[in-house]
Amino acid sequence: VGEFDLIKHYFVQGANSIGPINREPITLGIGDDCALLAPLIDEQWAVSTDMFIEGRHFFAGTAAYDIGYKALAVNLSDLAAMGAKPIAFTLALALPDNNPLFLQEFSRGLFALASQHNCHLIGGDTTRGPLNICITVFGSIANDQALRRDRAQVGDDVWVSGSLGAAAWAVREQTARLASLEALSSTLQNGLLEAAQNKLLRPTPRVALGLALRGVAHSALDLSDGLSGDLAHIAQSSMVAIEINCACLPISPEIAHLLPDQQLQLACVGGDDYELAFTAPRSARATIEKLSQSLDTSLSRIGNVVSQNKNNGAVRFLDAARKPLAAEIVAQWHSFQHFS
Amino acid sequence: VGEFDLIKHYFVQGANSIGPINREPITLGIGDDCALLAPLIDEQWAVSTDMFIEGRHFFAGTAAYDIGYKALAVNLSDLAAMGAKPIAFTLALALPDNNPLFLQEFSRGLFALASQHNCHLIGGDTTRGPLNICITVFGSIANDQALRRDRAQVGDDVWVSGSLGAAAWAVREQTARLASLEALSSTLQNGLLEAAQNKLLRPTPRVALGLALRGVAHSALDLSDGLSGDLAHIAQSSMVAIEINCACLPISPEIAHLLPDQQLQLACVGGDDYELAFTAPRSARATIEKLSQSLDTSLSRIGNVVSQNKNNGAVRFLDAARKPLAAEIVAQWHSFQHFS
Repeated sequence: VGEFDLIKHYFVQGANSIGPINREPITLGIGDDCALLAPLIDEQWAVSTDMFIEGRHFFAGTAAYDIGYKALAVNLSDLAAMGAKPIAFTLALALPDNNPLFLQEFSRGLFALASQHNCHLIGGDTTRGPLNICITVFGSIANDQALRRDRAQVGDDVWVSGSLGAAAWAVREQTARLASLEALSSTLQNGLLEAAQNKLLRPTPRVALGLALRGVAHSALDLSDGLSGDLAHIAQSSMVAIEINCACLPISPEIAHLLPDQQLQLACVGGDDYELAFTAPRSARATIEKLSQSLDTSLSRIGNVVSQNKNNGAVRFLDAARKPLAAEIVAQWHSFQHFS
Repeated sequence: VGEFDLIKHYFVQGANSIGPINREPITLGIGDDCALLAPLIDEQWAVSTDMFIEGRHFFAGTAAYDIGYKALAVNLSDLAAMGAKPIAFTLALALPDNNPLFLQEFSRGLFALASQHNCHLIGGDTTRGPLNICITVFGSIANDQALRRDRAQVGDDVWVSGSLGAAAWAVREQTARLASLEALSSTLQNGLLEAAQNKLLRPTPRVALGLALRGVAHSALDLSDGLSGDLAHIAQSSMVAIEINCACLPISPEIAHLLPDQQLQLACVGGDDYELAFTAPRSARATIEKLSQSLDTSLSRIGNVVSQNKNNGAVRFLDAARKPLAAEIVAQWHSFQHFS
């Protein structure tokens, strides 16, 4: 059996595990020069692409299952942040060698997540080269329902899903170990670290939340680079300023043993959480609290959209007394090296 | 100026060179979690993705301009083969280092071709890593007009655009030189080799031809792996056999000095020509000949679709006396190592 037959085997097997493709909106799947997508009337396609590389987005030695899972998860997270329903994806894959076990485990992780979201593999490309996974996802969204970055309004609350900081702590610990520095965490914290690593490797794309926020939130995005930098995108696109109350941030329980400063740094600039941050009017508070219960996803109100103040940065962090944190503290946070 | 600002600079500059995005069908371009595409009524989206890697799809040392051009060209060729009109593309790019000159030239080549086809960059991802370019293209096509591989009919003529073999010859010559073998071509052939290399580096995606063939051709694909293997896809998908008259093949003038056997091998299994092969009914001959004139693109009638004969392969090559070539000859052709 040749390498490409083997790839086909695993991917066809995985694709079949998702169940039959509905006639609409995927008209033609794998096997021709192009796939064909026929959207429904009054719907748009949301499209996002991400490249996923060893050493940049995951550590060398990461289990193939986790690589397959997360390569799709970060793309589904982009659809979630737009309020789009996952429909399909293409996969371009460069592999350094013919490793059947890698392919089997990679496709198992990939299709486990694809099945959960009924998201179909419709095309791709496989070649020899340094390990690189490039996925492009397609979601559908009704016209004018997209959760865009440029629609935050002055007076909105700022919300975030789940908790922040665990994934970034896992990155920091593993980076330190790879650099042969002394272990930053004690043996007693091994259980916490394992839990944090699990969050890093298998983030939950907040697809159901993104869908539920259509017509409720004014703007949204997913947290990949860190709360501070990501919220700055909303602030800049919407031409507003954002104030975050540090005391309201949902710190991941896995990092509750760290010093308060370190917790704040990981939560604010650590990245890799793939939670959703969104803004919504005060009038939506009750709706959002109900959503939190029905989706079994914690949602925290962490700040406010205020009018643009040209003398300050677009995102300000406030202490418990609602005074802005010193610029030096925020600047020092940004020394954190996360995946990019 | 940081690296990513520089990337943004070149890509925004390039994107602007294409001219304004029409409100439809691109609703939202670069800068949010996803781009939004809103197709017109009764249209489908054709989607294709290709990964483009140094050493596999282009030789190390290839000019950055040519890498940018060809990375998009091979994707546009897939749209052409489907009869789709190019609309937009996403670009995921892994770069080994911060090389402004590479970025400038890469984006110049990329957007030179994108402008020709009014094809807009709507999103992407840039990261550090071994050079890898992954483009996903989007084209529009009216419902039921797609040129699929599985619609060839017994009695169809088989046609091919342009000429065959020059790109494969350029690959063979450069591979030999890299392996420090003696130059296969004499100095006298340097001009021919340069012309062949130009065809390898800057294939013309046959977009206008693909659009014109809608409603005329029954099936089509583009020639990337070589005529023999690519036509086998049509034969298998359509459950027919295909006979090719070797005497009718349009051999590239750049390889006319080679031995007849070598010419045939390069034309039949060499690949990298990115011409279109298509099947069409006899009744369309006059229409196709007129198309050849109006598009200024040579179109050659090279064979026939015949009923499936389970005792033979799906694609047969016939000599001037219409006798099948010996199996050993065809098997030996396939020893050719092309890009994949």
